[in-house]
Amino acid sequence: MIETPSLVDQYCHGVLRTELGLGTFEAHLARGEGPPAPGTTFFDTQTGFAVRRWCPPLLGLEPHCPPARYLARRRELGVPEAGRRLLRGSGITTYLVDTGLPGDLTGPGELAAAGTAEAHEIIRLELLAEQVADTSGTVESFLANLAESVHGAAVNAVAFTSLAGVRHGLALAPEPPGPGEVRGAAGRWLADRPVGGTLTDQVLLRHLLWIAVASGRPLQLHAGLGESEPGLRIDRTDPVLLTDFARATAGLGTDLVLLHGYPYHRHAAHLAGVFPHVYADLGAVLVRTGARAAAVLAEVLELAPFGKLIFSSGARGLPELHVVGARLFREALARVLGTWVAEGAWSLTDAQRVAGMIASENARRVYGLKG
Amino acid sequence: MIETPSLVDQYCHGVLRTELGLGTFEAHLARGEGPPAPGTTFFDTQTGFAVRRWCPPLLGLEPHCPPARYLARRRELGVPEAGRRLLRGSGITTYLVDTGLPGDLTGPGELAAAGTAEAHEIIRLELLAEQVADTSGTVESFLANLAESVHGAAVNAVAFTSLAGVRHGLALAPEPPGPGEVRGAAGRWLADRPVGGTLTDQVLLRHLLWIAVASGRPLQLHAGLGESEPGLRIDRTDPVLLTDFARATAGLGTDLVLLHGYPYHRHAAHLAGVFPHVYADLGAVLVRTGARAAAVLAEVLELAPFGKLIFSSGARGLPELHVVGARLFREALARVLGTWVAEGAWSLTDAQRVAGMIASENARRVYGLKG
Amino acid sequence: MIETPSLVDQYCHGVLRTELGLGTFEAHLARGEGPPAPGTTFFDTQTGFAVRRWCPPLLGLEPHCPPARYLARRRELGVPEAGRRLLRGSGITTYLVDTGLPGDLTGPGELAAAGTAEAHEIIRLELLAEQVADTSGTVESFLANLAESVHGAAVNAVAFTSLAGVRHGLALAPEPPGPGEVRGAAGRWLADRPVGGTLTDQVLLRHLLWIAVASGRPLQLHAGLGESEPGLRIDRTDPVLLTDFARATAGLGTDLVLLHGYPYHRHAAHLAGVFPHVYADLGAVLVRTGARAAAVLAEVLELAPFGKLIFSSGARGLPELHVVGARLFREALARVLGTWVAEGAWSLTDAQRVAGMIASENARRVYGLKG
Repeated sequence: MIETPSLVDQYCHGVLRTELGLGTFEAHLARGEGPPAPGTTFFDTQTGFAVRRWCPPLLGLEPHCPPARYLARRRELGVPEAGRRLLRGSGITTYLVDTGLPGDLTGPGELAAAGTAEAHEIIRLELLAEQVADTSGTVESFLANLAESVHGAAVNAVAFTSLAGVRHGLALAPEPPGPGEVRGAAGRWLADRPVGGTLTDQVLLRHLLWIAVASGRPLQLHAGLGESEPGLRIDRTDPVLLTDFARATAGLGTDLVLLHGYPYHRHAAHLAGVFPHVYADLGAVLVRTGARAAAVLAEVLELAPFGKLIFSSGARGLPELHVVGARLFREALARVLGTWVAEGAWSLTDAQRVAGMIASENARRVYGLKG
Repeated sequence: MIETPSLVDQYCHGVLRTELGLGTFEAHLARGEGPPAPGTTFFDTQTGFAVRRWCPPLLGLEPHCPPARYLARRRELGVPEAGRRLLRGSGITTYLVDTGLPGDLTGPGELAAAGTAEAHEIIRLELLAEQVADTSGTVESFLANLAESVHGAAVNAVAFTSLAGVRHGLALAPEPPGPGEVRGAAGRWLADRPVGGTLTDQVLLRHLLWIAVASGRPLQLHAGLGESEPGLRIDRTDPVLLTDFARATAGLGTDLVLLHGYPYHRHAAHLAGVFPHVYADLGAVLVRTGARAAAVLAEVLELAPFGKLIFSSGARGLPELHVVGARLFREALARVLGTWVAEGAWSLTDAQRVAGMIASENARRVYGLKG
Repeated sequence: MIETPSLVDQYCHGVLRTELGLGTFEAHLARGEGPPAPGTTFFDTQTGFAVRRWCPPLLGLEPHCPPARYLARRRELGVPEAGRRLLRGSGITTYLVDTGLPGDLTGPGELAAAGTAEAHEIIRLELLAEQVADTSGTVESFLANLAESVHGAAVNAVAFTSLAGVRHGLALAPEPPGPGEVRGAAGRWLADRPVGGTLTDQVLLRHLLWIAVASGRPLQLHAGLGESEPGLRIDRTDPVLLTDFARATAGLGTDLVLLHGYPYHRHAAHLAGVFPHVYADLGAVLVRTGARAAAVLAEVLELAPFGKLIFSSGARGLPELHVVGARLFREALARVLGTWVAEGAWSLTDAQRVAGMIASENARRVYGLKG
């Protein structure tokens, strides 16, 4: 049996503090543009079935019990207690938490306490830029504050994450924009922008990426089925579009981590094989594909060197998703590697070593976490 | 064992009334630009092997018997009797039949009688437009007759189908074309067009799609490896190109059904998960991939909500293809879901429920068929 | 058990004559832009694990022994003796060898002698053009010598291979360039070119392809993860981009063989199904994906007619890669087809026949080799 005693979740969010009804819980099981179709429910998805498999036992129920029964039990325990039982049952020992999502979500400290785990913060670049814009009077002060903010955040944050792919598509010009170009774009954006306005300008998105690259912290890029914009054309987030940016940033000492990737996960694995500073994520896709997690994991393991893959849950809002991400990953990894050992393709020693690398060691090395 | 007693084939064609020799039969096993290469035969394909597996026993022969022996038996029984035995052996209880293909094919009524099943008609939009053009004298009468014809057809037809993707690629502008644009395009097309001439103008293709959307009937869109044009660049039919059209038609009350999809079936499944009114097809791809049907089916089951998948055979010309589509689907579904139950990932109850949804219930709901 | 006694490797390179240390050996296990990332090694890849599985026993060691021990044994035997043991252990009976790579690699004759096999030469078109350019004084003499060289090479070579996809992307205009266009491009290239300069001009690349098509020899086109340029955007080598070139060359009597293909191998299989003169390769991808070889092979077997698939190892530099290509192929083919036989989907007779076709018979027919 291949085991992974230590599990670093390299990308997730906090959990909701509020109680959820059947409908609000269900809404977190999918990433749709709208409610489920009439006559259907998001519980009838791989994510829904995976939640029903793994989570009821952690709250003292039978696997696959009906959603209404599960939610009744969750209410009975209360959100904090249910969250503690779930997070502690996930087996995750370290959470890296993107704190840039709106909504009443727990921060890294609360997540760590609830899960008796460690937690570190990931800074979302676009949110940082929007916050700086809210408090900067001029283009010059905005740009100076922006650089200072990113470098300041790099002191405590474990990584940066960028939504450039989700907001603009990943076909960004690979080189850093020139200073005049940046000033022009900043001027236009600040002039038009209401307080809290979203950053989508591609010059500023690229400028942000390059400030982050200069900080030396690992930079996580959303690719494939990503965050926040379910109806985006997914071909615009194909990680292959990052090839030229990867080449432009090679040798600078900053690692790039491609989050998600699916359904272009083989492309992400390819880039992780080609560029020494590029890593691929194995995470949210497992939560989305449920019973197919082992099959998808195996596809990523085709081209990616084993030192270049890192686990994450990609969970947001529901502690159930942290559980499902971790359990699916462990089971899928044990099944895939175990099969290869049984077939004689891999040795058991190698399989155990690779499992440890993907579950936690690669993350510890890339993010500089203590063992 | 997971069973699917009732089977609705949401997209197929009629069968040939004429007797077939070895070469003419073989030609229906592939969709090539030309005959098989010297030294090769289309019987040596997944489709050919699947026909040889499933059909001989229905005519009293051993599975996998040589093609010549099978065709001799088929001739011995005669086309009508062989067709009856095959269609009745398929297990399909309702056929939705696209009647827009040329050739001497049986209509829905004959298919129903031969298969002791129900049948309903699907109207091919482009053919309807070509027929209207043949009998309309002016642009004004053409456009008026076209709208009337589509709305008239919607009274009896169960759905519309469009070849816009196959004829023009799916990268169509998502919004409806303006009235002036439509009149201009209609004028140019009618002026240049011989009787029976094919509709490929993208403005008119889009106009047709929007008339169909207004009718409220489900609209089936060919995507991926589709109909009629084997040598088309398949990336031009990637369903991801329909993303903006899906967004433009959301909330209007008309469902979109993405036919085929393969090799971009994961993209079709993604759209079915994102947009409440988008459904994905599980059909012709199984006939094309034969022994791999379970593997391909499992890929579609990654992202698509289980209430958004619908079976079809995509069969045309040979009743053997209806048989193969239905048998491969049933076996693949039972194997995939059965494995997940055996692994503990799904409960048996859920697996049986989902099997019934994909085999017939989703189709009954979307097309308004009686149970 | 499904066996493949005869094995034609339709595309490989020679092996290095020099002794290799741990680092230089490791460098041949991946195709990266740079060394492995700090803390990682290319031995921790599917290719590395496959080498450690299959090769140590051929040199008298345990499978999966540590790399340092394997390389010590390799040095002990000496490069020639280790090479002989490995090549003879591969089971390859005929090598088709692309001699166009730089470096101190054995030619077809040496490979044949070391492996007690046959060998034939594949000519790399771009290298031929560069050699002709080195010795031609004028545009006219260059173009005349080029045509003569290609036709001369066709007398002895078994095939041509083109890197047009790797150098320019496969989205080349499908038709042959006009004579004036070719003269202009040749003039510009010859004027700017240092001796040994690389051919990347798309007009000349197309001109070369069409001279090769006129020769009647099979033309091998690199697609997907190809040779020489690991950091190229792989979507530019998607074989689907060859659709129009395939249509333009249909019926001319020259076969096109799509090498590699992965991760777009399903697209290559599709083209092999649509165009009578297009074939798909099953090779380098197996070496790259190791324990996943059977899964990838099965994906290619979805759409490609069984008479249109051909084995290769794609090996270069290390005889270990010839071994791994051959062993992975044999094991994967036996497992995939054996499973289909066990499931009743295929007959054993058909499976054995198809295995023989893919392993050697298709190659013998396409390349005109003696049985």
